Amino acid sequence: MNETICALATAPGGALGIIRVSGPQSLEILSRIFTKNLSEAQPNTIHYGHIKDEAEIIDEVMVSIFRAPHSYTGEDSAEISCHGSRYILNKVLELLVQQGCRMAEPGEYTMRAYLNGKLDLSQAEAVADLIASSNQATHHLAMSQLRGHFSSELAQLRAQLLKLTSLLELELDFSDHEDLEFADRTELDKLAKNINKHISKLIHSFETGQALKQGIPVAIIGKTNVGKSTLLNRLLKDDRAIVSNVHGTTRDTIEDTIDIKGVTFRFIDTAGIRQTTDEVEKIGIGRTYSAMEKARIILWIIDEKPTNEEINEITHHTGNKKVIIVRNKSDLSESNALTIADFPIISISAKFGTNIDALETVIYEAADIPTLADSDIIVTNARHYDALTRAQESLDRVISSLQAQVPGDLVAEDLRQVLSELSEITGEGQITPNEVLGNIFKNFCVGK
Amino acid sequence: MNETICALATAPGGALGIIRVSGPQSLEILSRIFTKNLSEAQPNTIHYGHIKDEAEIIDEVMVSIFRAPHSYTGEDSAEISCHGSRYILNKVLELLVQQGCRMAEPGEYTMRAYLNGKLDLSQAEAVADLIASSNQATHHLAMSQLRGHFSSELAQLRAQLLKLTSLLELELDFSDHEDLEFADRTELDKLAKNINKHISKLIHSFETGQALKQGIPVAIIGKTNVGKSTLLNRLLKDDRAIVSNVHGTTRDTIEDTIDIKGVTFRFIDTAGIRQTTDEVEKIGIGRTYSAMEKARIILWIIDEKPTNEEINEITHHTGNKKVIIVRNKSDLSESNALTIADFPIISISAKFGTNIDALETVIYEAADIPTLADSDIIVTNARHYDALTRAQESLDRVISSLQAQVPGDLVAEDLRQVLSELSEITGEGQITPNEVLGNIFKNFCVGK
Repeated sequence: MNETICALATAPGGALGIIRVSGPQSLEILSRIFTKNLSEAQPNTIHYGHIKDEAEIIDEVMVSIFRAPHSYTGEDSAEISCHGSRYILNKVLELLVQQGCRMAEPGEYTMRAYLNGKLDLSQAEAVADLIASSNQATHHLAMSQLRGHFSSELAQLRAQLLKLTSLLELELDFSDHEDLEFADRTELDKLAKNINKHISKLIHSFETGQALKQGIPVAIIGKTNVGKSTLLNRLLKDDRAIVSNVHGTTRDTIEDTIDIKGVTFRFIDTAGIRQTTDEVEKIGIGRTYSAMEKARIILWIIDEKPTNEEINEITHHTGNKKVIIVRNKSDLSESNALTIADFPIISISAKFGTNIDALETVIYEAADIPTLADSDIIVTNARHYDALTRAQESLDRVISSLQAQVPGDLVAEDLRQVLSELSEITGEGQITPNEVLGNIFKNFCVGK
Repeated sequence: MNETICALATAPGGALGIIRVSGPQSLEILSRIFTKNLSEAQPNTIHYGHIKDEAEIIDEVMVSIFRAPHSYTGEDSAEISCHGSRYILNKVLELLVQQGCRMAEPGEYTMRAYLNGKLDLSQAEAVADLIASSNQATHHLAMSQLRGHFSSELAQLRAQLLKLTSLLELELDFSDHEDLEFADRTELDKLAKNINKHISKLIHSFETGQALKQGIPVAIIGKTNVGKSTLLNRLLKDDRAIVSNVHGTTRDTIEDTIDIKGVTFRFIDTAGIRQTTDEVEKIGIGRTYSAMEKARIILWIIDEKPTNEEINEITHHTGNKKVIIVRNKSDLSESNALTIADFPIISISAKFGTNIDALETVIYEAADIPTLADSDIIVTNARHYDALTRAQESLDRVISSLQAQVPGDLVAEDLRQVLSELSEITGEGQITPNEVLGNIFKNFCVGK
């Protein structure tokens, strides 16, 4: 934190490139390569000048000045707006390093903001999610977390846990009055169960959070030549150019995804399913079943009524997933009524694009996304999920101990554990080990 | 120019994204989607707040305020520093357009800067070159042009042309004094030839300018299996990762290039040359000759002494290009002296990397790049080259007319033509047609 760091904060290749400098020496170091002395520059002001390598002008730039504690990192800092030439940007960074800056690690600006108390840990993590957000849903979740909605929910839970602790202490103080103890335990139990209910709700929201963040998996299945790939291309058509450019921090590979009403759906094309004795084909079909396993929604494409044998074969693998029957080639087939199990059926023509909008609506509804109100907290981060799960385990012990009339001082131990596990999420009220911090920030982009 | 324009000025995918707004309504429009009213904001100040879509917070941003005429475009303008999420950046642009902005055309900010007299045309073109600059040489040329060195050279030429014009007018005024006319014509002739010499120098600098901007073409030739590709990989080794990311505005495709001492060399690998009757192979060899034709330097790789027949075959196609004999496999071959024509010879091992640095120095020297002093003007732009060439043609007519004692008023016509052609370069003192402006700015990136 004594070091002054620098990094390119924008992607290379644009008209402009922004270099960030932060740390106690920011303005002093910058002044050595800038046309004017910025050490006394007022906060939140912009300065035009040249970045120079001795006599040579490297760039005409605008420098924005921020002063501790009113900056992103909470430190003195500056942003240099350069022409977006890779040569210029590298050269300016090189000059800054020559003058005493260190190149920033990924996420180091946000880590400093956290260490300086500008954000809590869950808000810091929301910054990375916000930058990676590629649609309305992921943006909404990240912004809500950055704005501290999750943090304040946790603060409320902690307040209730502290109340529980103080009631337990009260019990300890009056432990010789048997009747008092009994009354308190009922109230304690009620309070603990209420906290548990809230933690459960947060834990359960993680499934939705993950689905929204990574895209809701949809398997497209059906016999060969039934139009699966045509349908996939039709669904992807307008969006592929956009999504192919989106780099999520949460995804390892870019899959075929589309946004429907602000939510990402991840489509998995599969090999055609049919009865076969061919060993190679059997492997392909096995993969189809495992794709169905991973999916939340199954689009079963047909172009004629499936045999009962086929229906049995497939329903054997659908479990309680949402299944949508998509009757393709509506331009060819007769429109006779058709029923398969209790699955909803929609007729489309992938080739001519008929009814694709309606299909998208059916898919969206099948995903069963809760309407995201500002007040809904949805957990999207695996680290938070783990901490909540561990907190709940400790709380479960608290509840059984209360019921089993275990002495208060033993219960208090588990209660402190719950508090500590919840505090891990925001990093408040405890020292977060460097290793944990490193893991949190290493997946950030450099310059943030 | 009455419209307020907006655009993303950074490449998507970074920690930050900058959106530029410029035009008379900039601050008014921005205020409608920002948490505070910016219409009275002081110039060169930075404001923290939220961009909002009605009640929904789209992003926490920093807004920089610039006021006419002290802004890049010369207009009221603002830069919004957002989180680099594509969703956020698109959404902010969408809101700005909803509130009355128009999406900017490529180069429109710089075109406005030109139209508002902040830059002349050649400086505006230098902005695009500066952004595309990928090494020291191209950066130096672009920065020199942006700083107005070329413009002031042209201003001097125009001043001399105006002097010539006034002397010619003096001659016209005293046209009944035969002896006076004779004296003036000598001086006029001397002055015209001096101007011509300067224009010639600028015209000739274009070859170097082009080579520096597009990379100096180097053909690697030699028999099959002599190690051409190994050498190319060896030369490219450290740089490929860097250069493959550089998008020059002047190049259609990214070729295999390396930087040697701040100058780009563009390497062209070729099919092996040998005597053959195979028709397909003959086509490949034909291509090798045409690569040699386009190259400025030819690296002829050998691993044994070529036959006289081979030497004749190749020297038949080298013309007066710089040829360097590269004796590869120095680890294998004996170090006996070898002479081929008068070409310099260097022994290397592409496989083991021996003497590659020395080879790079020999290649750099063969390119014969003038040392770039601040005062050297090098023309890099085809439009400028065309204008200079046309100006010289008109000036040549002036010189012959002066010598042929053509009446002054006819000479003055060509002289005005020279002036007008030079003025085209900077766009000063004349109305530049929209079509010409369109051509100049269409190759800019959006947001500049």
